[in-house]
Formats: sequence, C-alpha cells, structure tokens
Amino acid sequence: METLLLNDEDVRENVTMAELVPAVADAFVAYERGDAQMPPKSYIDLPQYNGDFRSMPAYLDVRGDDAASQGGAERAGADGGWDAAGVKWVNAHPDNPDQYDLPTVMGTMIYTDPETAVPLAILDGRTLTMLRTGAAAAVATKHLSVPDASSLGIVGAGAQSYMQLRAISEVRDIETVVVSDLDEERVAAFIAAFEDDFDVRGGTIAEAAHCDVLSTVTPVESPIVPRDAVGDRTHINAMGADAAGKHELADEILLDATLVIDDYEQTTHSGEINVPWSEGVLDDGDLYGALGEIVTGEKSGRTDGDGITVFDSTGLAIQDVAAAHVAYEHATANGNGYAFDLLGLAD
Amino acid sequence: METLLLNDEDVRENVTMAELVPAVADAFVAYERGDAQMPPKSYIDLPQYNGDFRSMPAYLDVRGDDAASQGGAERAGADGGWDAAGVKWVNAHPDNPDQYDLPTVMGTMIYTDPETAVPLAILDGRTLTMLRTGAAAAVATKHLSVPDASSLGIVGAGAQSYMQLRAISEVRDIETVVVSDLDEERVAAFIAAFEDDFDVRGGTIAEAAHCDVLSTVTPVESPIVPRDAVGDRTHINAMGADAAGKHELADEILLDATLVIDDYEQTTHSGEINVPWSEGVLDDGDLYGALGEIVTGEKSGRTDGDGITVFDSTGLAIQDVAAAHVAYEHATANGNGYAFDLLGLAD
Repeated sequence: METLLLNDEDVRENVTMAELVPAVADAFVAYERGDAQMPPKSYIDLPQYNGDFRSMPAYLDVRGDDAASQGGAERAGADGGWDAAGVKWVNAHPDNPDQYDLPTVMGTMIYTDPETAVPLAILDGRTLTMLRTGAAAAVATKHLSVPDASSLGIVGAGAQSYMQLRAISEVRDIETVVVSDLDEERVAAFIAAFEDDFDVRGGTIAEAAHCDVLSTVTPVESPIVPRDAVGDRTHINAMGADAAGKHELADEILLDATLVIDDYEQTTHSGEINVPWSEGVLDDGDLYGALGEIVTGEKSGRTDGDGITVFDSTGLAIQDVAAAHVAYEHATANGNGYAFDLLGLAD
Repeated sequence: METLLLNDEDVRENVTMAELVPAVADAFVAYERGDAQMPPKSYIDLPQYNGDFRSMPAYLDVRGDDAASQGGAERAGADGGWDAAGVKWVNAHPDNPDQYDLPTVMGTMIYTDPETAVPLAILDGRTLTMLRTGAAAAVATKHLSVPDASSLGIVGAGAQSYMQLRAISEVRDIETVVVSDLDEERVAAFIAAFEDDFDVRGGTIAEAAHCDVLSTVTPVESPIVPRDAVGDRTHINAMGADAAGKHELADEILLDATLVIDDYEQTTHSGEINVPWSEGVLDDGDLYGALGEIVTGEKSGRTDGDGITVFDSTGLAIQDVAAAHVAYEHATANGNGYAFDLLGLAD
C-alpha cells in the first residue's frame, strides 16, 4: 500500500485543463447538492514572519450519473462516480520572494481514499492551487460569459494569468488576448508564451476590461479596475482577492453586476467583495447566487438581459480534492510519480 | 529545497522516548503560555464507511530558556528554542482490520518551517501518533504519580501498551508490570517483548489497577475499571477514550480523583470524561486543572495529600508537532529518510 508522490512536474503533466475544468464543475455540483463536506479553513497566523498557514480539508462525492470528470478507473465506481478526501496545507508568506527567493504561496496536499483512509498521494499543493484556480474561472466563464466570447483580457501577468488563458480557452473560443501589467518583462513573457496560439498583445486596463471576458489576478488592496473601463457585457473573474482588505474592482462594478460567489463564508471574509461588504456597501441583496447553484441549473447563468457579470473566487478545498483526483488518476495510469511506502503497509 | 520523507521505520528510529517526553512537556508549556496555536480539529464524518478524518493543525514556539527538547541544530535557535508548524490528517476506520487488513488509525503529517512555509518533512502519522500518545502519559505520570512509583499496570495489550511502558519507564523507575487483556496471545506477546527488562506478568484488571501507575488503553464504551479495583494512591492515565461515548473508568473513580485533562474542549467532547460530563455527573468543579498548568508549575502536581489521580488524554496537535520536530531533527542529523523535491524548488 504505497503512497504516490507527485511533484510539481508530475502534477502539471497529469492535469489537463480539458479534464480539470469539468472535474471542478463536478465539485461545485457536489457541494451544492450536499454531497461534499468542507469544514471552514483553519488559520495559523504568524505575524512575526508576516505569514500564515491554512488547513483546507474536504470530502467530495461526485455522482456517476452526472460526472463529467471520472478520470481513470482506480477510484471511479462502475457508474463513473468517484469520491475522495484530502487536506491541503497552504501558506501565504509575502516576504518569501525578496527574503528567501521562495514563492509567496506554497502548499502540500494529502489525498486519501475515504473508504479505507489510505493516503493515495502526496502532491505539490502549489501547482495544484494554480491549476484549480484557473479551472474555477473557466467554470464560471462557461456559465456567465457571452456564448460567443472571443476576447480575453487579463490584468496581472503573474503565474495565474497563464492558468486563466489555458483554462478559459477550454470553454470559449478565445482568439484575442489583451494582457495588462506594469511590468513590461512579464507582459513580454506572457506574449512569448502564447503568441503562437492566440492574437495576444499588451494593453491598458481599460483595453483588457473591454474584452468579452476579463480576469483580474493581482494582489492589490485598492481597486485598479474603474467602472467605466468595463465592457457592457463583459464577464469578470475576480481572482486576486484572497484576504481581508484586498479588492481589485471598483465598488460600482460590483453594484451594477450580476454577482456570483464561490462560497458565502469565504467571499464575505476574504474575497473580492470583502471590503465593500465590511463597509456595508454590499449585502445579501446584491448577491445573485453561488457558482454551484448555477452549475446545477438551480439558477440560470447568463441570459440575454445580463450586462456585466462578476465571479468572486476565493478558492475552495473541494477544488483541491477535484484537482488531486485528476492528478492521481492520470499519474497512476501513466506510471508517473514516485511510489513510497510511507506507513510501512506494503507487505 | 527538498522535503524529507520519513516512513514508519524512520520515525521509530529517530524518535527516542528520552527526547520525546521532554519535547511533549515543552509543547504543553508553550500551549499553556499562549506560545502555541491550535485551532480546533476539523472533522469529516463518513458514516457510509464507518469512518472519519480529522485535520489537526498546530504551531508551537518553544522558548529556549526552558526547552528540554532542542534536538538537533537545524531548527533550533542559538538559545536552544525552536518553533514549527504542521498539520496531521488522521482517521478512524474501525472496520479496516477485518475488511481490509489495514489499521483502524492511519495518518500523515506535514511538518513545515513557520518562517518560510517550506515543507520540511512528510511523516508517517500513525507511528507519530502512537509515540506522542505514550509521551503524554509519561509527562502526566512524572507530575502526578508517587515519586517512588515502581509498578505499572496496563489494561489493554494493543500497540499503545508498548508505548506506555517505554514512555513511563523514562520518568519512573518501573520494575514490575502487570498487563491485563482478554486476549491471551496479546498478553504473551507483550510479556515476551519486555521480560528481559522488567518483571512483567499477566493479571486481572484489579491487579493492574493496584499498581502505582495504571494506563488504560482500550476502546470500550462501558467502564471496565471499577472504583474498588484502584489502589489508594494510584495515578491513572486514561488513554483509550477518543470519541463521544467512550470511557474506561467508573464514574466514582473520576469523582474521587484529582482530575487532570489535556484540553478542555477535547476532553469534554471526546475524552474519558465525555460521558459523565454529558450526563451531568461531572462538571467544571470536578476538574483540578490542565496538564499544561501543572508542567508550568502554575498548579502543583501530586502532593502528599493526594489519593487517586487521573490524566484524561485525548491527544493534541501540539504533541504531533513536537514529535515531528524530534523526528525531523534526528533524521536530518543521521542522514535518514528520503529527500524528495516535492515543490520543484531544488535549484
């Protein structure tokens, strides 16, 4: 009974957006239907290091009758359904890049068989987080952007911007990409990475925000996207805010938009809406619904009457379990990863 | 920047009770002093598999001026202090032995540097749990048993009974051991394991409970130790109860004893006292204090006037972090374990 160790390269190689996007959609469905368990994140705050840790446990039971994401056969039942449990231990240490030449966010994921509790895999949680965050934006974009969306704007050209384009181009026929970042080197690197496949160029925030789809992936604490920059029917994935005090979009955008969140507790505490929420600018009446309600069909996605839509994404533990599932199934099928007898159970 | 994988054998070889017992004592001191963070355990309940998972995160800052447990130099400051953070993902699946030939309790521990969040080690959480549970009993026994205790009774001859004897003999000069279990093969195996070092024999529960120290390590839901079985000045480590509904000792023992707990939330919810507590038989007035209060000296341990003492142990996440610290420091110093570049940071 060995545990499969999947490092960054293994995770990247075994998780395609084509499979991850439906797996994350399934996770939102299971959560909405009550087929998932996701206790609140537990925080360890370390002000002496300007950092924190969060433990993110979850259990996910994806029914076979609607699973779009069954992956390999190892953990899939005869009906194509699957379940899995796990915990991600993730941090945010903003001083890491300057002080230690280390990433701000790292993380480790333990992925377990819920029936026996055997630890099936240990995965690089950093790569997993990047991938599943991109996938959530794609799920939202599929349901909330105009069906013929062909242009994608991205504000912030860091690592997550790559994931946004890879994921969103799975659900919409993206042809044109406008990337906006103060750092010209990052813009040039982004263009170089994608210019063979897309009509991609650098641009202003307003140019990015006039695309059919906009993803904002910055860590700012003062909004950088003004109301008048946004196209009339643009769908916005607000991905950057992940802590109290952070927001990227002007309050007026949120007030005017059809506003969709990933999770009530998390978004009101640390998502794009947390600042106007805490100031009383936004309240329950301003929320259209949760992404799970839209993916299940309980509430409709974009209709002809909708203008701006916003998806406020904080990132859920169920997404991590879904991503770990895809990684584990494919790594097992492909013979990737390093098998290690962690518990001494391999007789 | 590699992560050290420590399997069951690595953990056993690198954690001696001589070092673990003071490290766990330091953990209780840090917790009592507010130098630790330990969010409540998060539960995933899986009735369909008769099992559950718990995530147990903690941070521990052991001050150098009183650290008895500095271990190696890797994570110890110049003053001998150290800090560490981690999470254990642990389960209880009672059907595992019969259905899958797997242990009821397994577990995986992620051990991280709090300053940078680098995952220093991934450890077999099952072996770690066994060891740190024994060590907590030893810390309690050191402060609560008669100083010249020379006899140890153990009720239940499973794997934890071995840990109890190994740990408690670090703090008291144990000569005689009485082990009580309905399963004669387990008793014989226990005797065979220790007969070279101790005067060890099988016996009744009353014979075990008349020793200077008694450890109960069974999963029973109806008390098996009656009041009249217990010696006048016996210290009891009640280790078995780890879930609502479980208890090993008659209520009268708890009512008559000087009663010490590891943690208020956990013991009232799932410790030895949880059943009489929920029935109103015990309340705050019956608790003498927490182990941390005694180890720090805030409250006295055994005095000449004390009769029976009871330590109710549920097992704390800070104990896991302390045990992981000892394992990691020694494995690093000894060149044990398997170094794996989980996050792809090894440049």
